[in-house]
Amino acid sequence: MATPLGLNLREKGKLERRQRIERAAREVFRERGFDAATTREIAARAGVGNATLFLYARDKTQLLAWVFRDELAAVNESALTPLTGDEPLVDRLERFFRPRYELWARDPRLSRAAVRAALMANTERGEERDGDPIATLWPRLVERIAAVVTMNQRDGAIDPSVDPQVAARLVFDVYSTEVHEWLACPAPSVDDGLLQLRAVLALASRAMQKQPA
Amino acid sequence: MATPLGLNLREKGKLERRQRIERAAREVFRERGFDAATTREIAARAGVGNATLFLYARDKTQLLAWVFRDELAAVNESALTPLTGDEPLVDRLERFFRPRYELWARDPRLSRAAVRAALMANTERGEERDGDPIATLWPRLVERIAAVVTMNQRDGAIDPSVDPQVAARLVFDVYSTEVHEWLACPAPSVDDGLLQLRAVLALASRAMQKQPA
Repeated sequence: MATPLGLNLREKGKLERRQRIERAAREVFRERGFDAATTREIAARAGVGNATLFLYARDKTQLLAWVFRDELAAVNESALTPLTGDEPLVDRLERFFRPRYELWARDPRLSRAAVRAALMANTERGEERDGDPIATLWPRLVERIAAVVTMNQRDGAIDPSVDPQVAARLVFDVYSTEVHEWLACPAPSVDDGLLQLRAVLALASRAMQKQPA
Repeated sequence: MATPLGLNLREKGKLERRQRIERAAREVFRERGFDAATTREIAARAGVGNATLFLYARDKTQLLAWVFRDELAAVNESALTPLTGDEPLVDRLERFFRPRYELWARDPRLSRAAVRAALMANTERGEERDGDPIATLWPRLVERIAAVVTMNQRDGAIDPSVDPQVAARLVFDVYSTEVHEWLACPAPSVDDGLLQLRAVLALASRAMQKQPA
């Protein structure tokens, strides 16, 4: 007996439940950490049945991806601020990664779980990874870095003969390993993390700058 | 009532049990994979009690480290073959990493568990990591790469003004991320893996080569 109005109500109810689950997941993860949190407690906090929760999220990892989704979207927005003329490449790269380090430093325990889950998803599922929000955090980041490389090539900060995909991999590989090790500290500081990242990216930048023939 | 002979016998017994446990771990891991293997089955296969096994190894991950220890030692030996005069840096780096890719490709499922466990150990325990054989796989690798960098600086293939520690981090970060993604393939091929690694290391090499002032 679906009427247009009925459909809207159902859809509205669905959206509302989803938001309640997301909020509950955020709270429970923050309170207990990822490992100790249970989907049962998240369902109870959201006021939905355990089976209902699994209609919305496949597993605990997908709930974790929801929690970071909006914040990562904001980070990705802010990271694409316009370039300034003669800013060195390493400064531009640091400016790209700083909001990400700031995000991860807010709740290191939860960030550690998210960054680790993203890597695991990337190294576990192969083709299955499409549609998994955690798994797509990583490939999307490589694409974003490739876009930044292309922008910097137009701007003259990166040698136009460098393959943007390879340059993006280089920068991504550095970020990926460094951010993991940084998050291993009990209380990772944004400045310490960026200092180490910057040292390695400064060397990588030498490879991307124009070289005399 | 320990006599010198008695002590030797005890020590001999201990060593023998350790070897039996190691062999059993290798067999059970190969048959079941790391996740499905249980310390209970490994103890039974080795003919020791469950409690006895834990006198030798702290957990399943430490048993996994044992399984790879000798092979990694052999890889590390072979990776330090003398440099040839005018071999490009990227070829030297590929030659350094090839035996490692060959080792990991032999049993990808088990290698995936080992590489992942090494990363997790590195990002989980902070100061506790000393003495954990899995955790020390990574830091040791960075040291080895730094030694290779220094060798190449003496040889003229790497700019002597480059900080060997930073260069080692750059190469290590690339290897670390690339090997994880490569091992995510259901049947990772050594040549495919090295091709991708080489592409990124070729760009990184540009940063390390001598540049005109």
